[in-house]
Amino acid sequence: MNEVLKKIISDTQQSFMDDPELAKEIFESASSQKDGLYSEVLIRDHALGVDEPEKLGGADKGPNPVELVLAALGTCQEITYRAYATALDIPLDHVSVKLEGHIDLRGFFGVDDSVRPGYSAIKGTVHIVSSADAETIETLRGAVNAHCPVLDIITKPVQVDLEVDLKAP
Amino acid sequence: MNEVLKKIISDTQQSFMDDPELAKEIFESASSQKDGLYSEVLIRDHALGVDEPEKLGGADKGPNPVELVLAALGTCQEITYRAYATALDIPLDHVSVKLEGHIDLRGFFGVDDSVRPGYSAIKGTVHIVSSADAETIETLRGAVNAHCPVLDIITKPVQVDLEVDLKAP
Repeated sequence: MNEVLKKIISDTQQSFMDDPELAKEIFESASSQKDGLYSEVLIRDHALGVDEPEKLGGADKGPNPVELVLAALGTCQEITYRAYATALDIPLDHVSVKLEGHIDLRGFFGVDDSVRPGYSAIKGTVHIVSSADAETIETLRGAVNAHCPVLDIITKPVQVDLEVDLKAP
Repeated sequence: MNEVLKKIISDTQQSFMDDPELAKEIFESASSQKDGLYSEVLIRDHALGVDEPEKLGGADKGPNPVELVLAALGTCQEITYRAYATALDIPLDHVSVKLEGHIDLRGFFGVDDSVRPGYSAIKGTVHIVSSADAETIETLRGAVNAHCPVLDIITKPVQVDLEVDLKAP
């Protein structure tokens, strides 16, 4: 597995160096609200159900959107640890991530517009099993945090443009 | 449904006004890399599989983390439209969201460190079916975009603190 992944990484890096246009990718999602607050999402051929817990007005048929943000960050860290450990020849037996997102729901509920609706902070731990020493893992951590896409999306502003398409019933 | 949701919203707003401490919530996720780049996530009792497409080194057993970010944003918009339409008595027959995230993968692959690893831009359309006029929907859109948690998380910086816990095999 690691030799295969290592070759994919080095081949991809080379192709992007040769032609930067190949690195420009568009990811997509389509979601639709079905019943109450429950939505179905289709990402390529992967389906996903999203809902709110009952105390927030949903039927709890899936994780909620801010929980999905934590799932995205945790798994992006894991993938980026695996990719950079492989590329840098650092042993990595296992990686797992636990996260907590702190939110003040007065923001979402419009109770106090000085309170942001999103997370005020995200904290967590990356659990690593490795025979490498602490200094090597610190090097790996630096490479991961400099290149993890979802960490970048959450910690730095992304331009979002949403149009509205209104149709009569 | 709408009367039930409307009462949950107004009761929740009142309780947060009475005691702001009640509005402080912590959401959590736990993920673990299983095989290759594939990870399993547990959010409360909801399980989720995350992977990369084959051309990015995965086995395509689920959406990837940056696609999950789009799913989080689309469903958060839908929930926030439903909540604010209900609270503001604006008819909303249906809401669905299509999104595209533009990314330059030279960032993730470390080919050019002047390229950010996350999305350079997210664009999309909120499809609304409603008997309300365009001006009313514009008012709704303003309320939604001011209070949508995931839109806030993506467009404004969030503080993220990740510790590393290293264990030997």
